[in-house]
Amino acid sequence: MTQMQVSTLPTNPGELRDLMRKGEITSFTAGMAPGHVQANLVILPRDLAFDFLLFCQRNPKPCPVIEVLEAGQVHPVTSAPTADIRTDVPRYRIWRDGELTDEVETIEKYWSDDLVTFLLGCSFSFENALRDNGIDLPHWGTGENVAMFKTSVDTVPAGPFSGPMVVSMRWIPQDKVVRAVQSTSRFPAVHGAPVNIGDPSALGIADVSKPDFGRAWDPNPGDVPVFWACGVTPQAVAMASKPPLMITHAPGHMFVTDLRDVDLAVL
Amino acid sequence: MTQMQVSTLPTNPGELRDLMRKGEITSFTAGMAPGHVQANLVILPRDLAFDFLLFCQRNPKPCPVIEVLEAGQVHPVTSAPTADIRTDVPRYRIWRDGELTDEVETIEKYWSDDLVTFLLGCSFSFENALRDNGIDLPHWGTGENVAMFKTSVDTVPAGPFSGPMVVSMRWIPQDKVVRAVQSTSRFPAVHGAPVNIGDPSALGIADVSKPDFGRAWDPNPGDVPVFWACGVTPQAVAMASKPPLMITHAPGHMFVTDLRDVDLAVL
Repeated sequence: MTQMQVSTLPTNPGELRDLMRKGEITSFTAGMAPGHVQANLVILPRDLAFDFLLFCQRNPKPCPVIEVLEAGQVHPVTSAPTADIRTDVPRYRIWRDGELTDEVETIEKYWSDDLVTFLLGCSFSFENALRDNGIDLPHWGTGENVAMFKTSVDTVPAGPFSGPMVVSMRWIPQDKVVRAVQSTSRFPAVHGAPVNIGDPSALGIADVSKPDFGRAWDPNPGDVPVFWACGVTPQAVAMASKPPLMITHAPGHMFVTDLRDVDLAVL
Repeated sequence: MTQMQVSTLPTNPGELRDLMRKGEITSFTAGMAPGHVQANLVILPRDLAFDFLLFCQRNPKPCPVIEVLEAGQVHPVTSAPTADIRTDVPRYRIWRDGELTDEVETIEKYWSDDLVTFLLGCSFSFENALRDNGIDLPHWGTGENVAMFKTSVDTVPAGPFSGPMVVSMRWIPQDKVVRAVQSTSRFPAVHGAPVNIGDPSALGIADVSKPDFGRAWDPNPGDVPVFWACGVTPQAVAMASKPPLMITHAPGHMFVTDLRDVDLAVL
């Protein structure tokens, strides 16, 4: 189906997910259910679950855990109890041995009691915090993504999981940099505070106009490049370990939870 | 050996742990290496590790994870790389099928490559924050513990792990209650903000002068009972699942990490 106008959609996460379940929403979720937490999805076989949860625990900035569902469980009891994880994400990707093999709207035919679901924080929530604090984000509402970079900073490995941290970059006006740190620090469950302010070379980034993922945006005069740990990290790391089966959301097609952003604020 | 005077001990965590390893410190660790994070210890067989880590993830207030060591690993690479978890806690308890069977100064004879070590936050760090903010804690320096209560609030279960949340209680002067919330909110990795202010009945606590663990302390006029999630919770929950082998620290005999309290502050 074509992209629906976000403004015509229900703002209640449960009603939204019903439409996703029926296949009536299969589009990007940016801007949907404003004020509610959206999550990255990683589904892995049970025998990788401990190491992957440990990897997330060791790398909380790129891999903030919102909820983990035990093997075979499909209802996220904490973050969205009425949801079914097999049908309520608008678009999924199927990976076998690290290779993309399918893109689908439901994963029922791939599901088994051996699968463990990880819901990880995504940048939408902290971007809301930035915007609430008067920081304009030009990609917002365009359907396009921020600039993202593989860095020279290694994550802390766990079992078969290791690899570089991926960061997202946003241009922040000089006089808003402090506010950007403060407002995102409140939300460690959605990547939290920046990992770097104004020094891309410390992350091994040679040219901020040439991102590895997403697209570059032009700065205004005096803007400072600010870097946050990015939820692409856990997917990239999981993929690099070439698990026999991995299921993720398709880029930009997130799982919409019942949690409100403010539920995740630590202060 | 007899309790050494804390004031005569090295303040460096590594030097302290060397003395523990040699059996020259086997005492309570309260007040040692001031400003450094001390941790609760739970060691479990590998096949319980995912569920226990998941239990901690679902119950971050009582079970804040400082570090998890993969099966067979003995060096906490993040929080104390030079330490050996088998020798550097002053006193351990050995539990079999939920029953205390031994109390020892090293666990080398119980160790195997099947064991996974969990280091969980302890209240010492947030008590430092309270004291730094001018809140007197009468148990501090006495070698005695705060009052602790089993509550009527259930933890969120994971696998075989379930049970009531245990809380610690401190009397806080009315005009310091806000400061107590603020100063401990900065430290979610060591239990963080209170779970209740001034309403013990909401936790199913009938009489604050009759704690389930530790001892009661007398309030000053106008003091408010404030409750924090307590690190006794994960031990009690693990014990209740009656694992074939579980190793913990002996009460008050914590693992001293190299981390500083301030390293755990979110803001």
